[in-house]
Amino acid sequence: MTHHIFVCTSCRLNGTQKGFCCTKGSADIVRKFQEEIEERELEGEVTVTNTGCFSRCEKGPIVVVYPDGIWYGGVTLNDVGTIMDQHIEGGRIVKELQI
Amino acid sequence: MTHHIFVCTSCRLNGTQKGFCCTKGSADIVRKFQEEIEERELEGEVTVTNTGCFSRCEKGPIVVVYPDGIWYGGVTLNDVGTIMDQHIEGGRIVKELQI
Repeated sequence: MTHHIFVCTSCRLNGTQKGFCCTKGSADIVRKFQEEIEERELEGEVTVTNTGCFSRCEKGPIVVVYPDGIWYGGVTLNDVGTIMDQHIEGGRIVKELQI
Repeated sequence: MTHHIFVCTSCRLNGTQKGFCCTKGSADIVRKFQEEIEERELEGEVTVTNTGCFSRCEKGPIVVVYPDGIWYGGVTLNDVGTIMDQHIEGGRIVKELQI
């Protein structure tokens, strides 16, 4: 696997989903990453996983890309293609989204 | 930050929590990592985040450590101290848990 993308969907340990990122549509951001990975035939190389809070709520929705350790904030559905093009496939950090 | 530990707590995108890892007590594994990080005064250096499914349910509970990209399976509460000692503080993969 080359990249593992983590997207906060505000999952709490008690099983509820409550928080800034999920109210900003981050579950759709996960689905969009899944679609993009399939369309680009990158299954096996790139994985997306939803998460609980990264404690950077004020900068949400939060997307973290490993192994690079790059954190993105204020991510919208429109940014998903940009992150896939520039970072995942192009190897260049999307500076304007980095936090 | 030196390490980011991800623990599956079976969060689904629809907001429910349902799956193998959470039935095996993985929320307590997250809490135990949080306690160990505090006790060892590693806040800021080591972070733990709960996640949705990693699609390796049959090997759960799953713990993934980045930036190393090491996947552990069948993790129990007793293994948390071992992962902290050997991997996080010692820099040596816990081979018997690796999947």
